[in-house]
Amino acid sequence: VMALRARVLYDFTSENPGEISVKENEIVTLYSEQDIEGWLEGTNGHGERGLFPASYVEIQKSDISTSFNNNSSSVDAYQASRYANIPAGGFQPSYKTQNQVENYNKAPALNFTTFPATTSQHPPQSYPVSQGSDDDWDDDWDDNSTVADEPGVVSGGFHDFEGNGPSTYRVSTSSMSRGGNAQHAKSSATVSRNLNRFSTFVKSGGEAFVLGEASGFVKDGDKICVVMGQHGPEWQENPYPFTCTIDDPTKQTKFKGMKSYISYKLTPTHTQSAVNRRYKHFDWLYARLVEKFPVISVPHIPEKQATGRFEEDFISKRRKGLIWWMNHMTSHPVLARCDVFQHFLTCSSTDEKAWKQGKRKAEKDEMVGANFFLTISTPGAPLDLQEVESKTDGFKAFTKKMDDSVIQVNATLSEFARKQIAGFKKEYQKVGQSFKYLSQAFELDQQTYSVGLNQAIAYTGETYEAIGDYFVEQPKQDVDPVLDLLALYQGHLANYPDIIHVQKGALTKVKESQKHVEEGKMERQQADGIMERCNIISFATLAEIQHFHQTRVRDFKAQMQHYLQQQITFFQKVTGKLEEALRKYDDA
Amino acid sequence: VMALRARVLYDFTSENPGEISVKENEIVTLYSEQDIEGWLEGTNGHGERGLFPASYVEIQKSDISTSFNNNSSSVDAYQASRYANIPAGGFQPSYKTQNQVENYNKAPALNFTTFPATTSQHPPQSYPVSQGSDDDWDDDWDDNSTVADEPGVVSGGFHDFEGNGPSTYRVSTSSMSRGGNAQHAKSSATVSRNLNRFSTFVKSGGEAFVLGEASGFVKDGDKICVVMGQHGPEWQENPYPFTCTIDDPTKQTKFKGMKSYISYKLTPTHTQSAVNRRYKHFDWLYARLVEKFPVISVPHIPEKQATGRFEEDFISKRRKGLIWWMNHMTSHPVLARCDVFQHFLTCSSTDEKAWKQGKRKAEKDEMVGANFFLTISTPGAPLDLQEVESKTDGFKAFTKKMDDSVIQVNATLSEFARKQIAGFKKEYQKVGQSFKYLSQAFELDQQTYSVGLNQAIAYTGETYEAIGDYFVEQPKQDVDPVLDLLALYQGHLANYPDIIHVQKGALTKVKESQKHVEEGKMERQQADGIMERCNIISFATLAEIQHFHQTRVRDFKAQMQHYLQQQITFFQKVTGKLEEALRKYDDA
Repeated sequence: VMALRARVLYDFTSENPGEISVKENEIVTLYSEQDIEGWLEGTNGHGERGLFPASYVEIQKSDISTSFNNNSSSVDAYQASRYANIPAGGFQPSYKTQNQVENYNKAPALNFTTFPATTSQHPPQSYPVSQGSDDDWDDDWDDNSTVADEPGVVSGGFHDFEGNGPSTYRVSTSSMSRGGNAQHAKSSATVSRNLNRFSTFVKSGGEAFVLGEASGFVKDGDKICVVMGQHGPEWQENPYPFTCTIDDPTKQTKFKGMKSYISYKLTPTHTQSAVNRRYKHFDWLYARLVEKFPVISVPHIPEKQATGRFEEDFISKRRKGLIWWMNHMTSHPVLARCDVFQHFLTCSSTDEKAWKQGKRKAEKDEMVGANFFLTISTPGAPLDLQEVESKTDGFKAFTKKMDDSVIQVNATLSEFARKQIAGFKKEYQKVGQSFKYLSQAFELDQQTYSVGLNQAIAYTGETYEAIGDYFVEQPKQDVDPVLDLLALYQGHLANYPDIIHVQKGALTKVKESQKHVEEGKMERQQADGIMERCNIISFATLAEIQHFHQTRVRDFKAQMQHYLQQQITFFQKVTGKLEEALRKYDDA
Repeated sequence: VMALRARVLYDFTSENPGEISVKENEIVTLYSEQDIEGWLEGTNGHGERGLFPASYVEIQKSDISTSFNNNSSSVDAYQASRYANIPAGGFQPSYKTQNQVENYNKAPALNFTTFPATTSQHPPQSYPVSQGSDDDWDDDWDDNSTVADEPGVVSGGFHDFEGNGPSTYRVSTSSMSRGGNAQHAKSSATVSRNLNRFSTFVKSGGEAFVLGEASGFVKDGDKICVVMGQHGPEWQENPYPFTCTIDDPTKQTKFKGMKSYISYKLTPTHTQSAVNRRYKHFDWLYARLVEKFPVISVPHIPEKQATGRFEEDFISKRRKGLIWWMNHMTSHPVLARCDVFQHFLTCSSTDEKAWKQGKRKAEKDEMVGANFFLTISTPGAPLDLQEVESKTDGFKAFTKKMDDSVIQVNATLSEFARKQIAGFKKEYQKVGQSFKYLSQAFELDQQTYSVGLNQAIAYTGETYEAIGDYFVEQPKQDVDPVLDLLALYQGHLANYPDIIHVQKGALTKVKESQKHVEEGKMERQQADGIMERCNIISFATLAEIQHFHQTRVRDFKAQMQHYLQQQITFFQKVTGKLEEALRKYDDA
C-alpha cells in the first residue's frame, strides 16, 4: 500500500482544536490526499495528528507503507471508490464551488434536502480520540486541572453542580455550565470551518460505509441485529440482560501517596464478581465506545472536575452519575454486549496483564466507525427512505424541543431547590423563632393554667424550625435525582445531532447517486449498493431512536414517580410533625 | 355651690391635643383651682374644654353655680375632700418643687416607688370623651377621612391591613400601621407635658376615688363583685353568660343615597333577637365603656378607615374584627353585663325613641370613672399591698415582653403570608409550567407507550400550578385569624399601662398617706380610708389581670390549634393533590 506524504510550503500555526502546526519544508504524512473543505488531515514531525490547510502543502507519493483507518482500506482502494461517484474534477473538494451550486440549482425538482454544516446546532460527537499509550494510561488524567487541555478527550455533557456545595443551585440557563452549551459557544465561533472539517458523516465512517469503502471480518459474536418491532426497527434485545452496581467509592493512593484517586466497586449481576475501576477507566471506555458506534448515543460520563474531587458530596454525586451511566449502558442491547464494555466489567482489577491485553485489543478493534455498520444485520424488507427521512426530521424536532424543555425544567427545579434550601427554610425558621419568642414571653406567667400552653407554643416553634430543616434536606431526595436524570439526557440530546447528521448524510448520498444515475454518471448497480448501505444505517438509526424513546419513557416515568413519591413523603412528614405539635395543645 | 372662674392674663394658643386657646382678659370657667403640673383645666368663652397654663390666668371667686363631673360632687365638697389629705400650702401643686423632692430625700427607707409620668410608655387611654349630641350622632362619623380630627374619639389599636388588598402584607414592624405605635410616636414628642396633664390616675377618677372624693348611689344591679378564685382575685362570673353573632354586613343608604354605610346584624344568644348596628354605634359604645371603666381593658374596635369602606375584603375584615371584639365583650363578666352594652345589644334598631333614651341615659351615667369603683364589692380580707405591687410589676414586665413578641409574630406571620402568596406560589407555578412544557415536548412523540406518560406529566404540571394557588389561598385560613387575634391583643396591651398606672397611683397615695401619718400630718383614720379604697382598686386590677391571662390562654390556645389544624389541612390537601398526580403514572 502506498503511503501519502506532503511537503509543507508555508508555516502554519494551529489555532483551533483538531488543527496541527506545520513548518515550511517539513514532511507530513497524509491520511488521504483528498481535502475536506480545503483542509488535509495528517501527522506532523512531532507525531501530532490533525488538520492543516491543503494549500499550504504539496502532495508527494512515496512507497513507505503504513496503515491508517483500522488498517482496513488501502489508500488506493479508498481513492478509487471515493472518486467513483464523483464527477471529473472531484466532487468533494468543490462541494461549495459555484459549479456545484449550479448543479443543485439545475435540479430543484429532486426534493433535495441539503445539510450545510451550519445548520447543525451541535458540535461533532465523534472527534478522533487519541488512543492513549500505556504510559499515558498511567498518568492520572483525572488530576489535570483543565479539562479542555485533555488531548482528544470528549468532554461529557453532564450538568455540573459541583463546587457550589450542597446548598447552592445555579439558577439561570445562561449561567449553567452545561457541557453541551459550553461546546456550543465554542463551536459556534468556528462552526463554518470546524463542522466542515470534522463532518460527522465523514469522521464517523458513515460516508465511507455508504460509499462501500468499509471492509472487515465480522465474527459471529460481533453481529448486531436490528429487528422489526411493534413500533418499527429496534435493536434485538439482549438475551442475557444484566445490571451492575457501583458501590464503595474508596480513596486510593499510589507513588507513596503522591497521587490519590477514587476507586469504585463494580459488581455486574451476570458475573457476581466485583471489579475496581477508576474514573479514568470510565473515561477510556467512553472514548472507545464513541469511536466504535457512529449511530449509537453513548451516555456521557459525569464531567471531569479539577478541584474538590475527594469531597464527600462530589464523590457521592459522581457515583450517582456513574450509576445512571451504568444503567444506560447495561440497558442498551448493543452497548451492553460489546467486548470493550465486557472487558471493563469483568477483567480482574488485580490481573494487570489481562487488563492491558484487553485494553490493547479494544484499542486495535477493527470494527469501529465505518466497519461497525458491517456488523449490522437488518430485516429483509428495506425501509422506505422517504419515511426514514420524515421520521428523522420528526425526531430532530423532538430532540430540539426536549432539549429546550430539559433546560427549563433543570433551571426551574434548581431554583426550586435553592429556594427551599434558602428562602423556604428561612421563612419557616422565622415563624418558629417568633413562636418560641412568644412562648418565652408567656413563660413570664407561670400560673398552672398557662404552663401547658407555654410549652405547646414552644414546641410549635421547634416544629417550624424543624420543618425549615426538612426543606433544606428535601431537594437531595427529590430534585437532585431529577437533575441527574436531566443531565444524562442532556448528554444524549447532545449526541443526536451527530447521529442524525450521519443518517442525513447517507440519505443525501442516495439522492446524489440517484441523480448521477439519471444523468448517466453512475451505474445503477453502484447506486443500489449505496441505497442498500443507507438502508443499514437507517435501520440502525431508527433502532437507536426507538431505544431512546423507550428508555426515555421508562426513565422519566420512574423518575417522576420517584419525585412525586418523595414530595408526598415530605409533605406527610411535615403534616406528621404539625400533628405532633397540635397534640401538645390537648392538655394545655 | 360656688363655681371657679379665672381671668386670662396673657394670650395662649393651644399647641397640643387637650389644650385650649385663651385670650387676654377672657373669663374662663375652671374645674378646679388646683393645677396639674402647672396646667389648669377649664372652659373658654367658645365653650371649648381643655388645659391652659396656670400662670397665664388669675383665679377669681364667683357665685355662679354650675355642675361638672357627672353633676355629682359639688365643687366645695370636691375641694374639701381634695385638700383634706394635703398639707397646708397644697400638696399637688408642689409635687415637683424642691421642697417636695427634699421630703422624698428625707425618707429613703420608705421603699417608695415613684411613677414619674415619663416612665409610662403608652398614651393615656381614657381621654375625656365628648358626649356626642343627637345632632352629632346623626353625622356619619364613619365618613370622615381623618381619624385624628375626630373630636374626643379614642382611636383603636387595631392593626390595619386594609388598603393593601388581599395579596400584600406589610412586613417590617417599623412600617406597620399599628394604632399603638402611631400613638407612641405622637405622644413621645410631648410626653413630658402631656402625660402629666392627662395623668391617667387623675383622669380616670382613680385619684378622686382613692382620696374619698367619689360619691354616688349604687343600685343593686350595678354591683360588681370581685371574688377570691383559685388563682387570686377574679371578677365574679356572669351568671347569665351569652354570646352574640355578627352577620350579614349590608350596605344601607340614607339622604336619598347621598350617604352610605354598612349595617351589621347582631344576634345575642340571650335574646335571640337580631338588631342592626353600624360601625359608629360600636364606636359610640366603645367611648362609653372606656369612660366608665378605669381599670378594665376595653377591647379596641377595628380601626376607622377612610377609603374602600364598601369593598368586600374590607367589610369581611372589619366583620371579623368586630366578631373578635364581641367575643371579648361577651366573655368579660363586667363588660358583658353593663347597661350600655345591653342597650346596644338589645334595643330594637327600629325603635328610635327607645334607642335615644338609652343613649342619653348612658351618656349621663353617674357611675363612671371614680364612681365606678363605688360599685365594686370585694372579699372581706384585704390584699397585701406589697404583693399587689409585686404582681403589678410582674404584669407590667409581662405585657412589655408580650407586646414585643406579638409585634414580632405579627411581622413574621405577615411576611410568611406574603411569601406564600408571592414567592412560594411563583416557585410552584414555575415548576408546574416547566413540567407542562416538558409534557408538550414529549407530546411530539405520540407512540402508544408514550401517551400515558405525556398526560401524567401534563397533569403533574397542573398539580404544581394548583399547589401554587393553594399557597395563595392558605393565609386567609390560618395566618389571618392569628393576625386578627394579635391585633386585638395589641389593643389590650396598649390599655394596660394606664390600668397599671391607676393601680400604681393608688399604691403611691397609700405610701404617701402613711408617711404623712408618721409625720403627724394626717389622721390615721384618713390614711386607713385611702388604704381601703386602694384595696378596692387593687382587687379590681388583679381581677382584670386574671381575666386577661385566662382569656389570653383561652384565645391563644384556640388560635394556635386552629392555625396548626389549618396548616395540617393545607399540607394534607397538597399531599392529596400530589397523590392524585402520582396515580396518573400507574397506567402510563
